[in-house]
Amino acid sequence: MNRLVSFHLRAWLGTIILSAVALPAHETRASENVYPHYSLSSTDTYDLGLIKPYTAQHEAIYAHIDDSLPAHLENLQRWVRQPSISAQNVGITAMAQLLRDDLAAIGFSETRLVPTSGHPGVWGFYDAGAAMTLMVYMMYDVQPVNPEDWESPPFEGNLVERDFGRVLMARGATNQKGPERAFLNAIDSIIRVTGTLPVNLMILAEGEEELGSPHYPELVDIYEERLRSADGVLFPFNSQNLDGGLTVLLGVKGILYWELESRGGAWGGPSQAEIHGSFKAVVDSPAQRLIEAIASMTSTDGNTILVAGYYDDVRPPTTEESMLINTMAEDWTGNDWKQAFGLKQFIHGLDGQNALMRYFYDVTLNVDGIWSGYTGQGVKTILPHIATAKMDSRLPMGVNPERQLTLLRKHLDVNGFPDIEIRKLSGYPAAQTPLDAPLVQAAMGVFAKWATVERIMPRIGGSAPFYQFTERLGLPLVFNGLGNGTGAHAPNEYMLIYPSEGSSVAGLAEIEKSYVDLLFALAKSASETE
Amino acid sequence: MNRLVSFHLRAWLGTIILSAVALPAHETRASENVYPHYSLSSTDTYDLGLIKPYTAQHEAIYAHIDDSLPAHLENLQRWVRQPSISAQNVGITAMAQLLRDDLAAIGFSETRLVPTSGHPGVWGFYDAGAAMTLMVYMMYDVQPVNPEDWESPPFEGNLVERDFGRVLMARGATNQKGPERAFLNAIDSIIRVTGTLPVNLMILAEGEEELGSPHYPELVDIYEERLRSADGVLFPFNSQNLDGGLTVLLGVKGILYWELESRGGAWGGPSQAEIHGSFKAVVDSPAQRLIEAIASMTSTDGNTILVAGYYDDVRPPTTEESMLINTMAEDWTGNDWKQAFGLKQFIHGLDGQNALMRYFYDVTLNVDGIWSGYTGQGVKTILPHIATAKMDSRLPMGVNPERQLTLLRKHLDVNGFPDIEIRKLSGYPAAQTPLDAPLVQAAMGVFAKWATVERIMPRIGGSAPFYQFTERLGLPLVFNGLGNGTGAHAPNEYMLIYPSEGSSVAGLAEIEKSYVDLLFALAKSASETE
Repeated sequence: MNRLVSFHLRAWLGTIILSAVALPAHETRASENVYPHYSLSSTDTYDLGLIKPYTAQHEAIYAHIDDSLPAHLENLQRWVRQPSISAQNVGITAMAQLLRDDLAAIGFSETRLVPTSGHPGVWGFYDAGAAMTLMVYMMYDVQPVNPEDWESPPFEGNLVERDFGRVLMARGATNQKGPERAFLNAIDSIIRVTGTLPVNLMILAEGEEELGSPHYPELVDIYEERLRSADGVLFPFNSQNLDGGLTVLLGVKGILYWELESRGGAWGGPSQAEIHGSFKAVVDSPAQRLIEAIASMTSTDGNTILVAGYYDDVRPPTTEESMLINTMAEDWTGNDWKQAFGLKQFIHGLDGQNALMRYFYDVTLNVDGIWSGYTGQGVKTILPHIATAKMDSRLPMGVNPERQLTLLRKHLDVNGFPDIEIRKLSGYPAAQTPLDAPLVQAAMGVFAKWATVERIMPRIGGSAPFYQFTERLGLPLVFNGLGNGTGAHAPNEYMLIYPSEGSSVAGLAEIEKSYVDLLFALAKSASETE
Repeated sequence: MNRLVSFHLRAWLGTIILSAVALPAHETRASENVYPHYSLSSTDTYDLGLIKPYTAQHEAIYAHIDDSLPAHLENLQRWVRQPSISAQNVGITAMAQLLRDDLAAIGFSETRLVPTSGHPGVWGFYDAGAAMTLMVYMMYDVQPVNPEDWESPPFEGNLVERDFGRVLMARGATNQKGPERAFLNAIDSIIRVTGTLPVNLMILAEGEEELGSPHYPELVDIYEERLRSADGVLFPFNSQNLDGGLTVLLGVKGILYWELESRGGAWGGPSQAEIHGSFKAVVDSPAQRLIEAIASMTSTDGNTILVAGYYDDVRPPTTEESMLINTMAEDWTGNDWKQAFGLKQFIHGLDGQNALMRYFYDVTLNVDGIWSGYTGQGVKTILPHIATAKMDSRLPMGVNPERQLTLLRKHLDVNGFPDIEIRKLSGYPAAQTPLDAPLVQAAMGVFAKWATVERIMPRIGGSAPFYQFTERLGLPLVFNGLGNGTGAHAPNEYMLIYPSEGSSVAGLAEIEKSYVDLLFALAKSASETE
């Protein structure tokens, strides 16, 4: 088994670290002193051993969960058996209604399908008359499937034996219906046993996460004022690896994703169709033009961005980040990444803390794809009239995607490529939650009770549009949780339901109990801070 | 109708010109004085009006052709109805046997299927006891088809009405079975009427032209000594445009075609599979590495090659070439190319003679294709582990493909890309025939009798492995002829059989008569020079 945790939100993560800085520059294209060097603002560490496990036991609710486990599992199966493929508009409305009806059945006083310019959202409010309010972000859509690649049909929701336990195998099992419905099972048990919840709940679900959440901002628009009154946001998630370890993530980078297109035009080059390659003697090449434009954006090694101002806005390390990074750097070698990627070395031969600093604070420039002309077998001699690249930049805290887009446009214009088109496909800023937020502290205590917190990372290099919660609504966000699953966006997606004997991983029952604990821990933090 | 002549041998041509030199350099990457400037060695022109049309009339043979035309057309149809797709090994042996049997039926004393490491060749010798011997190069294979794209099924060989006449529509109609079988019809009529031929004939045909003639050298190996005794080589060809004009080509450029591949390895980068794009922060990109390697090969505008020594071996313009170029430059504007290609300007804004000089003498470096990573719709954020480009150089006379390959390897090594693999897919030198060769002069006279010789070009920018004849065997080569056809490598390929009334284009009968004339003209040139 791959020990790396699979993270579905255009993100990915394993185990990490870091230390001082000073990046060697191998570039031959002018790049002296372009790359910014960030310094940690503290030499202190953050002692994971000092996290106080949540100690309260909610035996009656736990017993209800244990007794209801077959029915709770059936709830998960009911959800994954309802296809809801946003990209293909398959089963979307039915799934949205299923979610709304489930909320109503559990006892939410407000439930509503919320129209957007795309697939509908689902709103639910449970008024417990409590001091604290938890917002829960949910997505009810799933990725497309290739059924022939699956061990068990993707929408049958069968239990399948693995050497580490019995898993629910289905599209959406872990991304994200499984953990979401597990959360609802947990609150259902709390309500059945205690008659109410320890916190108020606001649920705002979307059916377009797999499309990049294009209309989630519309949903937030509608409920913005009420959402601002919440004390934090939870995104139910299976984050444990198969050893039971859990990495807590406090943030994500933002992203700007765009296409560059070079076509023949006023500058030269064939403009209507590919032409015979022999005419390269007198005809400019749009493909070579695209290549030159991309090359102009970085140092010769591709790792230092030469787009003027591109690094300007990165927010330097905070004290909290510095402490977390110092702690990670104590035992992080990068070898697991190197092994997972078949990598002989990191850029510039970086290792340890230097590599971690780069990972956390780098504004990246990446070629996701490039294509032009003939790409089949053998020989075909053409001069293509069009060349296209897909590129992305990962944006640390402080960096605004729209500003970066402007800088890219200016770079192309200034460097003689005004004809090259930039098409923005996606863009949003980074998101990060402070470690000392009550919701995060409550979650840390619960995680420490049920699992081993192996690391706390200030952010990952991947992206998710969490800025809606952290930056826009100003709410702390927890997007980690107990449980194990993988295969998001791939065949044989699963969520572990019944771990093997002796396993350190939470099964469905423990996951639900941890959500019970989280709600009570959050409620308790309110009373403590009052 | 597109007035551009379709030329099937990885070449293409229209109407052309040129004058002095001095290429402006817009490059920003170091390229000062790298590009060689060639000077014409004569200011004289070559007066096309001085070509003496062949005047003899071979009425009895012409009459035999006219009487036999339905049967002659059936011969063409019999050939195109036998599929012979070399790339898919469809009908190859049957077609080779058909060709051999036809040669035997016509009266060739030697006919033979000649095994090679690939598809078989076909040898035929007709001993007329004549002073002169003509070698005829033939190809009996054709390109693959997509039948659904055709107006008339590609292997039915139907006659189809066009506004310029009735055409034989079939795969192979013009590339190359039509003109080849027309040539055999012509010699059959000569033999039927006169009992023999005015010249001896050697036919050496291959079934792999559409694959790049990989094993034709093996065939030449077997017959080399006898072939050297020939007086020239003919490749039957439909070269007329729909106005009846004919451009005579004396040569072709050579070619080197290769793939560049960049993969993660000891230098860095993921080596096993694509990884999540967010890791660009610490992982080198094989795609950007390929982009940088390609960019390093040329000036920033892609038009001056910076590979050391790459221009060294170009043979400067001869007096004959200078005269032909001066003549073309008198009325060539390049506008027809610009229109055909949707081109606003040539490289560096070149026009007239400057553009023609570049077209004739440039060693090109062209990106035929490039691909890496995700190339589908929308957003997928990956760092690809492999990137590939297809590239080619067109090689004027004097330039050796193997040496260029060595220079490319050295360039990559010296510029820090020793890991980037070069895979050679094809390579052979240029070929050119002197205008004063007896076979060429005979052909010019025949062309002037039956058509308007619009231009004589020392070479085209495209490539064909004619060096086997011109350089290896030292024989002049004629690869133009009467007749019109197009669609080689495309749907609805045709050869014009019966031109509309008033047309200036040769139909099947005139094509055959012109081949009759060519053999007698060649025989006559022998007696004149003796």
